[in-house]
Amino acid sequence: MRESIKVFAPATVANVVCGFDILGFAVDAPGDEVIMRRKAEPGVVITKITGDDGRLPMEASKNTVSASVQDYLSYIERTDIGVEIELHKKMPIGSGLGSSSASTVAGLFAINTLLDEPLNRMQMVPFAMKGEELACGSGHADNVAPALLGGFVLIRSYKPLDLIKLPFPESLYCAIVFPEVDVPTRDARRMIRDKVLLKDAVIQWGNIAGLVTGLFMKDLDLIGRSMIDVLVEPVRSILIPDFYKLRDIAMGLGAISFGISGSGPSVFSFAKDKDTADKITLAIKKHLNALQIGCQTYVSPINGEGPRIL
Amino acid sequence: MRESIKVFAPATVANVVCGFDILGFAVDAPGDEVIMRRKAEPGVVITKITGDDGRLPMEASKNTVSASVQDYLSYIERTDIGVEIELHKKMPIGSGLGSSSASTVAGLFAINTLLDEPLNRMQMVPFAMKGEELACGSGHADNVAPALLGGFVLIRSYKPLDLIKLPFPESLYCAIVFPEVDVPTRDARRMIRDKVLLKDAVIQWGNIAGLVTGLFMKDLDLIGRSMIDVLVEPVRSILIPDFYKLRDIAMGLGAISFGISGSGPSVFSFAKDKDTADKITLAIKKHLNALQIGCQTYVSPINGEGPRIL
Repeated sequence: MRESIKVFAPATVANVVCGFDILGFAVDAPGDEVIMRRKAEPGVVITKITGDDGRLPMEASKNTVSASVQDYLSYIERTDIGVEIELHKKMPIGSGLGSSSASTVAGLFAINTLLDEPLNRMQMVPFAMKGEELACGSGHADNVAPALLGGFVLIRSYKPLDLIKLPFPESLYCAIVFPEVDVPTRDARRMIRDKVLLKDAVIQWGNIAGLVTGLFMKDLDLIGRSMIDVLVEPVRSILIPDFYKLRDIAMGLGAISFGISGSGPSVFSFAKDKDTADKITLAIKKHLNALQIGCQTYVSPINGEGPRIL
Repeated sequence: MRESIKVFAPATVANVVCGFDILGFAVDAPGDEVIMRRKAEPGVVITKITGDDGRLPMEASKNTVSASVQDYLSYIERTDIGVEIELHKKMPIGSGLGSSSASTVAGLFAINTLLDEPLNRMQMVPFAMKGEELACGSGHADNVAPALLGGFVLIRSYKPLDLIKLPFPESLYCAIVFPEVDVPTRDARRMIRDKVLLKDAVIQWGNIAGLVTGLFMKDLDLIGRSMIDVLVEPVRSILIPDFYKLRDIAMGLGAISFGISGSGPSVFSFAKDKDTADKITLAIKKHLNALQIGCQTYVSPINGEGPRIL
């Protein structure tokens, strides 16, 4: 049995423009790292956190990475186990890229691997969702499910939880830009009205059906034309500096799509190759920098496997 | 060049439970037949209608089958052509099975075949939609598109019109029951509220995404669990006698799904084979008959080809 393990769990893009609350995908970069070591005494402790600028709690019950490991150990009736956790944040917090989800999934994947996989990945999803509730105030699955399972994950239903992995074109690249402005998930959710026009909802479900079809058919053009959000983006885009100008820049450089990642402020594009994705991130960064807004950029293929041992 | 032609165009099931306004499929039976003969003088006339109990207009400009042929001839600039149309209704009017659509598509398919196919099937869809507008007051594509193209057709978008044929499990059978009660399409549409709860819309688009995924994966179980409608069915089901009891009967006999066809009053189930579909229609018919409600039943595989020459 392993005494220690170092793992990576990926950042994720939730919503994917037209799949509000039901779709997400994982990327290869960025992501978080967790080092987990067994210790003699029972219990879960955090010994170190880096890369968070002191923003995350060290107390085990308050940090999603440790709290979800505690839940997991209770569930498998192994509270006799003791582990120390080092969390190395390698991605920005509050970016709309599933930062808390990456930490949670890294912790759960680490403990499950350390204990020789008592649960499969699908079985770990509920613990990760509970971690999301602690971190974000709502237990959504659209970041944790793709972070754990890899690839594109459809959340067909929450009650009962019904997750389905979707295929995707392997050539697809993702260009991500995180503009360093503050958009808390809780506030971003509150902006959205609780009623919508049926005619807009019909447009939305035509597009989500089109996106799923495009993923199955590996049809980049159909994927692109389906990635339209008439409900949430018009509201949330207000929080993102020059959102529609950034879209024009991305689309002008050949992006397949452009939209908000999760509740923002990160934006992402799909591109047909790395070169196009590189050009898009660079041009968006340049535009934001001219507005005196700092940003972080990532170019990555889709991560089809989820977390991995380092 | 042919002097006359006899064609069949299929009935269709629109909405498919969770795909309100964006999804429909064609069946092998029932459907309408059109006999079209060239005549010397230009113009389109209807010479005979059977099976409609005198409910359909004989005047060419008022009947969808002739009016859409007139539109078509204007578009291809062949108003020099003259044809006589016999329309043989082989399916009930006002049943929610795309009755007007079957007639329209039969007429368009007949004229296009008679003229050696100046347009492809996709190009004929707008003329069929215009025919729907004449017949039903709104130019939806969820009956005419599957009637023309066959199989399952996703209407990803109306503006611009974007139609995509979806795959389906070939073993799938459809059990249809038309209870002889009157539910005009216009009234059925008016019953639906123009605003919906976002949380219900999210459930709906999770399910449409699940249904599309199930069709691609040929996963009958996923197709079944995705065919839930939290928005339209709760309202429209009021017009259908004992709707929820009929569902229990169908599901109890092994139906994959049960729901309203289009705006009703016809109901349909998917079944894994003909035998199961036969049992479902028989049991539903028996239940309705006990309520003194007459009905017509149809059991059919999915029609993958659309209209055909007889």
